Amino acid sequence: MHITEIILKKRNGKALGRGEIDYFIDGYCRGDIADYQASALLMAIWFNKMDRRETTDLTLAMRDSGDVIDLSGISGIKVDKHSTGGVADTTSLVTIPLVAACGGRVAKMSGRGLGHTGGTLDKLESIPGLSVSQGMADFHRIVSDCGWSIIGQTADLVPADKKLYALRSVTGTVDNNSLIAASIMSKKLASGADAIVLDVKTGNGAFIQHATDAEELAKLMVDIGEETGRRTIALISDMSQPLGNAVGNALEVREAIEILQGKHEGDLKTVALALAAEMLGVSGLVADTAEAHEKLTAALTSGVALQRLADMIQLQGGDPDVCRNTGILPQAGDVMEITSDTDGYVHSMMTDEIGNCALLLGAGRLAKDDPIDPAVGLWMRVRLGDRVSAGDVLADFHVNQRKNLAEATSRFKKAVGIGPEPGTSPDLIHGRVTGGD
Amino acid sequence: MHITEIILKKRNGKALGRGEIDYFIDGYCRGDIADYQASALLMAIWFNKMDRRETTDLTLAMRDSGDVIDLSGISGIKVDKHSTGGVADTTSLVTIPLVAACGGRVAKMSGRGLGHTGGTLDKLESIPGLSVSQGMADFHRIVSDCGWSIIGQTADLVPADKKLYALRSVTGTVDNNSLIAASIMSKKLASGADAIVLDVKTGNGAFIQHATDAEELAKLMVDIGEETGRRTIALISDMSQPLGNAVGNALEVREAIEILQGKHEGDLKTVALALAAEMLGVSGLVADTAEAHEKLTAALTSGVALQRLADMIQLQGGDPDVCRNTGILPQAGDVMEITSDTDGYVHSMMTDEIGNCALLLGAGRLAKDDPIDPAVGLWMRVRLGDRVSAGDVLADFHVNQRKNLAEATSRFKKAVGIGPEPGTSPDLIHGRVTGGD
Repeated sequence: MHITEIILKKRNGKALGRGEIDYFIDGYCRGDIADYQASALLMAIWFNKMDRRETTDLTLAMRDSGDVIDLSGISGIKVDKHSTGGVADTTSLVTIPLVAACGGRVAKMSGRGLGHTGGTLDKLESIPGLSVSQGMADFHRIVSDCGWSIIGQTADLVPADKKLYALRSVTGTVDNNSLIAASIMSKKLASGADAIVLDVKTGNGAFIQHATDAEELAKLMVDIGEETGRRTIALISDMSQPLGNAVGNALEVREAIEILQGKHEGDLKTVALALAAEMLGVSGLVADTAEAHEKLTAALTSGVALQRLADMIQLQGGDPDVCRNTGILPQAGDVMEITSDTDGYVHSMMTDEIGNCALLLGAGRLAKDDPIDPAVGLWMRVRLGDRVSAGDVLADFHVNQRKNLAEATSRFKKAVGIGPEPGTSPDLIHGRVTGGD
Repeated sequence: MHITEIILKKRNGKALGRGEIDYFIDGYCRGDIADYQASALLMAIWFNKMDRRETTDLTLAMRDSGDVIDLSGISGIKVDKHSTGGVADTTSLVTIPLVAACGGRVAKMSGRGLGHTGGTLDKLESIPGLSVSQGMADFHRIVSDCGWSIIGQTADLVPADKKLYALRSVTGTVDNNSLIAASIMSKKLASGADAIVLDVKTGNGAFIQHATDAEELAKLMVDIGEETGRRTIALISDMSQPLGNAVGNALEVREAIEILQGKHEGDLKTVALALAAEMLGVSGLVADTAEAHEKLTAALTSGVALQRLADMIQLQGGDPDVCRNTGILPQAGDVMEITSDTDGYVHSMMTDEIGNCALLLGAGRLAKDDPIDPAVGLWMRVRLGDRVSAGDVLADFHVNQRKNLAEATSRFKKAVGIGPEPGTSPDLIHGRVTGGD
């Protein structure tokens, strides 16, 4: 077997066998196969695609490239969730405490990505004292004690994905569903959960713009999960406007807490509850959606879910008082109101661009080692279809450095489309994909 | 401009602009663009192809990546030739002395490739004393004195091609006509000739198997030549059996000399004369093909062409007596007759595999620094359509080391297909492509 032959085989439109895929992943991780051969193969895959079987084989080869976590020391069904990412998408910090409050077990490992804001790890780290660096024994204990924990990935979790993702991002080979599915599912499988709920985002704030692509990706990932013995369900949810109000690390924690406090309604809460219901379902803790929502409503109104959040914060060294008083989160020096220049309806949002504005204010990172300012970001005050008058506030900018403020303001105003007609409001959940589909 | 955007543009099916192509070639040669990005772009080009304009732009960017040779110090029209390569294809050593004998001027630079035998440089170096390492001043003087010279490429002739070719050969991106055309034509343009004759081989001994691909490649190269002000003509010639009898370095020199001595007929002579006629045509030295053949026949029968070969050998330090006595060429220790096991007609030859047998005997190189044995190789004794009986000699193997002899013999016998029907004999010249086509 030789990598050049494997490249030619895929280039010429043939499906690769499990042995060939293993040879590629093993060789690439060991450094026997060069980046330039891997990128040629990735581009050939981009053009000729991989079928289901190849995608599963790729996922398994990637999973086995490093640590595979054993969660059997934690009793019960361990359920994981994954979102493909969007703007103001802090569902994890709402959904997972709710699931824990209803008896679910969530031992979640997260990575640090590049993006408009930090990832879930960065959001959690905006809570004073909280550490996401827990050893395996502590991780197990925290989940056993309070039902859930989120920690940073071990350094050797799917090293093949780290290498491949870095390569894909600079060689024009990111947007292929098989490569995306293998990247996500290899990490989910290596993380050791028994059941998986996926939140596949679609719309102009997601990296998958079209609902049909999102549905194909969701089916692919659900099939991989089910084929490898995990109960797996995917929701396809809308990202044609920021999901919640907050775009920024501490701001998103605040919004999640306010939802669990019962003080805050909206699409973020709706999607978080829908995901929580699916997680209870695949965990076998509820018979149907009605029972799930009954239990979740009780967990919310009783304050048990908020308490689960406080418990986890405390067990990971953070200050649980944040759940009563979000004022102890890092606060930006200035809060500036960004107002509408015209009258009309909010008919469109360039969601990705709104995320970029938060990035410009310092909420996210472009390069791996960029610092993040946990306090800054923006808080949306309008949603699609809202009627606004000139001078009405569109968003609050939470600002520390004024360096990029003018640019962020100007780009934000362009990103919020205001016109004479309200436009159509998209469905929040576009679809649901299960193993039988 | 960024290379990732250029990769995405080509991947998404758009034509690249001259500026983008220059940016790629400049950046890649400087090392600013990584191999893994170049290989991804090459694979995207393989899938989405390049149009004529892009191919010409790529050729010019590659030409300008290093030395561009100035031949204006040599009077007259300088004409170059190039063969895309085949088995027993030593046309240069017949064609060019003939052209020089008829008043043409050929200042040819050659590279050393990998293959069944060495390239033209290796063949010339089998002549005792001859050196292909001549300085520019000597090169000009030799061409002015005897009408022709062949030397090794300067180290900095189209460095972009050296880097790209090495990358293409290990990333499954060799067989794309735009990349092949740019590779060949950038070197032809950088070598400084005023007119170019191309010999595009097609058949199972050429790397372009199908005549339609060969024709497309020929048109592309002729267009590039004409667009850049070079009279350019291509012949498409057959490579479904070894062109001459000899496969091996000194053996091919011997065959070329025997043709110029008037002692040897066959397809190699026919193609060599056809190429020589085209070279006289594009040099403006003859009015038509009839005049060309008249002059060439005179040059051959008078011995002037053989004398031009002897002159060049002497001017480059070699022993010109070789033109009278080929016995002074390196001789293999053993000559072994390979015989037919059956009666029948030679109905097919696996030409590439016959080349591999010469390689196994030590005539060629697989890696850049492999040694070549100038004496060894094989001498074909049959051609397609020949009637043979069991025990008839199919070829003579010229052997020094017996290491691979058994394998070479067994593979050779399989490569020569003998059956009850003679099969069809292919045309020797499949086509002729000029700028007007």
